Amino acid sequence: MANLLHHPLCAFSRSIRLALDECGVEVELEEERPWEWRPEFLVLNPAGTLPVFIPEEGGAIAGAYAISEYLADTMDERPVRGFQPFPGDPAARAEVRRLVDWFHRKFQDEVTDYLVVEKVFRRFGPQSSSPNMEAMRAGHDNLRYHLTYIGHLTETRSWLAGDAMSFADLAAAAHLSALDYLGEVPWEEFEPAKNWYALVKSRPSFRPLLQDRVAGFTPSGTYADLDF
Amino acid sequence: MANLLHHPLCAFSRSIRLALDECGVEVELEEERPWEWRPEFLVLNPAGTLPVFIPEEGGAIAGAYAISEYLADTMDERPVRGFQPFPGDPAARAEVRRLVDWFHRKFQDEVTDYLVVEKVFRRFGPQSSSPNMEAMRAGHDNLRYHLTYIGHLTETRSWLAGDAMSFADLAAAAHLSALDYLGEVPWEEFEPAKNWYALVKSRPSFRPLLQDRVAGFTPSGTYADLDF
Repeated sequence: MANLLHHPLCAFSRSIRLALDECGVEVELEEERPWEWRPEFLVLNPAGTLPVFIPEEGGAIAGAYAISEYLADTMDERPVRGFQPFPGDPAARAEVRRLVDWFHRKFQDEVTDYLVVEKVFRRFGPQSSSPNMEAMRAGHDNLRYHLTYIGHLTETRSWLAGDAMSFADLAAAAHLSALDYLGEVPWEEFEPAKNWYALVKSRPSFRPLLQDRVAGFTPSGTYADLDF
Repeated sequence: MANLLHHPLCAFSRSIRLALDECGVEVELEEERPWEWRPEFLVLNPAGTLPVFIPEEGGAIAGAYAISEYLADTMDERPVRGFQPFPGDPAARAEVRRLVDWFHRKFQDEVTDYLVVEKVFRRFGPQSSSPNMEAMRAGHDNLRYHLTYIGHLTETRSWLAGDAMSFADLAAAAHLSALDYLGEVPWEEFEPAKNWYALVKSRPSFRPLLQDRVAGFTPSGTYADLDF
């Protein structure tokens, strides 16, 4: 079986777990603690980042970008399923990728880095320290802007990038689910974003993520609740 | 004709200018100053980042990720040329993308952000200020590590990701060329990286970049020199 090196609260890992499941690729999960800089891990991905996908035939595909595109490149090798990471014509695919970049780069830098990395990964890192309150405040402010943007996109589209669910939805939901685990998402104030998230959250691919538990961090009361 | 909104010292823009030329796509360049947050520009790319590609038939493809993959997705619509952004089988393409991510994310965060953004963009931004010396020192240290990594890759490969030139080479060279404009690259200490860069620099696609000039910043003496 294929393997995936991941961390339960890493948004990049979460997006790939969702994509693998939606594509019908079974993997065995191996939890990796990237802050430990394990030499065997750095051989697989010298950048030291998660996730890393080890296909059944061997080799290592490192990072959410390479893995998501690899899943699209190898669609023909798998039984046909409904989900395509980058559906549509070249322009539609470009819109999916613009939004993947939006969440995996902009949202990561403006929200996830502040709220998840500060709160969780900083505690485990070599220089364990308390969260920086100013950073967390910036993260909360930015999150509200991003939730508004998600609502804006869903005003005219069924899914974030268009008529079909794509990797853009999975990337966005991955970040939000990590924040939601920590109880950081003010859903009740952002109804359209909440309605979109409820759709993604109810996918069977989401179930394993809702069972994740990280020692030292109890998930928020509604984290696993489909009727949140 | 197609258009590209870019900035001469933006490494993402540079990588796409190279890729467009290598793919045989002619564009008219329009210089954009992203720090001005021009409303018409934000309509094209709400993230406010460069570059943005406007194909001849209209629409906007925003960001180096979406544009580079769009060029690969539309290969069949153009006359056959030697260059493919992501050449090879799915595993080889994944290696190209791992390295694109390396340069467009890791190198950007660890070097370009410190040395180009600090030195140039900060000066033009709304809160114009002097470069942060500590950030610049970190950028210089990190650059040495990345030049060593490039040398390491070329020990066993003709190009960064394998036997063929790919978008990984263009992304890496784009960052280094922006730094080289500012005279920040200690080439003489990193011979293997220098030899690889000389190959990319001598491509016809590179010529327009070597003619770039940014007001207030004179290019380093050997910037445009193919025999540097």
